[in-house]
Amino acid sequence: QENYFSRETLDRLSGKRSDAAWLEAKQRDPDTVYLLFSNLSPMATVTKVNGGHGADVKLCRFRYNAVKDLLQKPATTEPDTPDAPVWFAINTDEDAAELLKRCENSSCFFPKSPNRDLLRLDEEEAGVVAQARSVLAWHDRYSFCPTCGSPTSLQEGGHKRTCLNPDCRSLKGVHNTCYPRVDPVVIMLVIHPDGNQCLLGRKSIFPARMFSCLAGFVEPGETIEEAVRREVEEESGVKVGPVQYVSCQPWPMPSSLMIGCHAIATSTDIKVDENEIEDAQWFPRQQVVDSMFRGAQQTLVVPPRQTIAHQLIRHWIGINSNL
Amino acid sequence: QENYFSRETLDRLSGKRSDAAWLEAKQRDPDTVYLLFSNLSPMATVTKVNGGHGADVKLCRFRYNAVKDLLQKPATTEPDTPDAPVWFAINTDEDAAELLKRCENSSCFFPKSPNRDLLRLDEEEAGVVAQARSVLAWHDRYSFCPTCGSPTSLQEGGHKRTCLNPDCRSLKGVHNTCYPRVDPVVIMLVIHPDGNQCLLGRKSIFPARMFSCLAGFVEPGETIEEAVRREVEEESGVKVGPVQYVSCQPWPMPSSLMIGCHAIATSTDIKVDENEIEDAQWFPRQQVVDSMFRGAQQTLVVPPRQTIAHQLIRHWIGINSNL
Ligand SMILES: Nc1ncnc2c1ncn2[C@@H]1O[C@H](COP(=O)(O)O)[C@@H](O)[C@H]1O
Ligand SMILES: Nc1ncnc2c1ncn2[C@@H]1O[C@H](COP(=O)(O)O)[C@@H](O)[C@H]1O
Ligand SMILES: [Mg+2]
Ligand SMILES: [Mg+2]
Ligand SMILES: [Mg+2]
Ligand SMILES: [Mg+2]
Ligand SMILES: [Mg+2]
Ligand SMILES: [Mg+2]
Ligand SMILES: [Zn+2]
Ligand SMILES: [Zn+2]
Repeated sequence: QENYFSRETLDRLSGKRSDAAWLEAKQRDPDTVYLLFSNLSPMATVTKVNGGHGADVKLCRFRYNAVKDLLQKPATTEPDTPDAPVWFAINTDEDAAELLKRCENSSCFFPKSPNRDLLRLDEEEAGVVAQARSVLAWHDRYSFCPTCGSPTSLQEGGHKRTCLNPDCRSLKGVHNTCYPRVDPVVIMLVIHPDGNQCLLGRKSIFPARMFSCLAGFVEPGETIEEAVRREVEEESGVKVGPVQYVSCQPWPMPSSLMIGCHAIATSTDIKVDENEIEDAQWFPRQQVVDSMFRGAQQTLVVPPRQTIAHQLIRHWIGINSNL
Repeated sequence: QENYFSRETLDRLSGKRSDAAWLEAKQRDPDTVYLLFSNLSPMATVTKVNGGHGADVKLCRFRYNAVKDLLQKPATTEPDTPDAPVWFAINTDEDAAELLKRCENSSCFFPKSPNRDLLRLDEEEAGVVAQARSVLAWHDRYSFCPTCGSPTSLQEGGHKRTCLNPDCRSLKGVHNTCYPRVDPVVIMLVIHPDGNQCLLGRKSIFPARMFSCLAGFVEPGETIEEAVRREVEEESGVKVGPVQYVSCQPWPMPSSLMIGCHAIATSTDIKVDENEIEDAQWFPRQQVVDSMFRGAQQTLVVPPRQTIAHQLIRHWIGINSNL
């Protein structure tokens, strides 16, 4: 099973990233591909709708000459691929309307809602955006050294930031303060002890009738399995026994690693934590199947296929009810 | 299978942590348990060796009156448990020798090598240390706001830090800059296509003859499975196909989540990345079994049972060679 945002089409070339001369040569290389982000949204264009479903948004690609003025500024770059062209991504705060004029394609735009519009890319481009947006979002929020408060400078093609205060403790030894942050999150489909119902919750910001898997951040010193048990009990009051890892998904808003699990409930009473979610219910398998395959007239709406929540639900539907 | 550092004996009470009045009352509660850390080492005492193997180090526990002077300082606290006593952990830079005088037990000490001495706790205490040390290490390195460089203040019993600059962007919306960092790391036992050898590597800092599983940080926008494939290829040149999650382990040096996997190699030539490791070799199953059960005279030494690397190797040994 492959989740959206998961396909790696580019080589991360972490051995090359630290070579400043190589990076500079690649930046000027006429084959190099540049992506332009404004406010962490990638410039994209709507293509002809292919049969009414699926990917209809394509990333706009630029060459060095079209963006070199932006590189003079403290922009963020990100390299990739072996002999094939190298890719960089730039996030800029230039006026968005002016930026759009750089593109030959007149239908190009900056997706307004990252959570919705970024799900309309094709799988290959989604993987590139997952990497680029996570790293750019890190630069956007982590430009000061958390250890001493000084400014930092970008290194290794955007995969490191180093404190500019020569006395800073962060310069002695290797510390995570210098590297992009990835937040592990557990997301789980909780299965009723009878094997024929699953627990879904809704946040007040969800579209009408949509319910999804519960989820939460892994806390320090915690395993994946314990985080699943704790978050489910916190949010729904339901107790969980066995936990089974299914698959994961990078979620670049800003930089989560969604760790998807199935979990077997050992209790069934629901007590919703109203700070986190608005409602949580047990849904019978048939209602979930109907929602997934019969579409919008249903009483239950599940999240779109690009989400790991959808895939966890689909995986369960495919599983025999005799667990 | 339960990994060291994984047992949760305390309730994280994340619903209570944000209640400042409750926290203050619990701090003064005579039943409350305090742990004292100096330079991120917990004060501990050596107990009688129980039969020559296993846990022989116990955490020193304090009551409010014994540490309240340290609480006046900007110390870090961490709450736990339901009706049972609440636990706090304090990290202080007071003179270590002076701190030791607070303990009735004369054999107490601050473990010098966290990587070695912290592995001598019993399983229950190891879980507490995993949580406490990760959170304390975060405070130690993240006292300034990475978004604007201003000082921050501690909140929610140590599980949040808020920027003190009222104009900071971090105060609008919810951002990971305010929360403890957890770094996902993949650690993997790579199995030869013949099913009867495994790939182990050694860093130059390892004890003589010790080899362990390869490991590396998950990068932004990457899945667990891709991180396994990338790190194995970077460090050893070996290509990997199927990846199977086995179990995970919190590793509080400072705050990693070690995600343990088995991975099946699709190539066998080894090309070591000398920046990262000193050597990598295929080891036959029998040699690994001998090393694990016959001890120190062997040509191969595997990491101790408290490491997830050990458990991944042990798990493989238990698996039939016909994969
Ligand atoms: N790394 C993080 N990023 C954002 N919010 C976090 C993080 N860690 C903990 N939180 C808190 O967790 C809440 C979301 O709850 P949950 O996703 O269920 O753990 C947020 O509103 C924050 O208060
Ligand atoms: N969060 C992080 N903490 C520490 N080092 C990191 C981190 N992310 C990337 N690195 C780099 O990764 C190297 C270790 O390589 P590996 O563990 O194989 O990924 C370190 O020496 C750092 O250069
Ligand atoms: Mg939650
Ligand atoms: Mg949470
Ligand atoms: Mg949640
Ligand atoms: Mg590596
Ligand atoms: Mg690495
Ligand atoms: Mg490594
Ligand atoms: Zn600094
Ligand atoms: Zn700030």
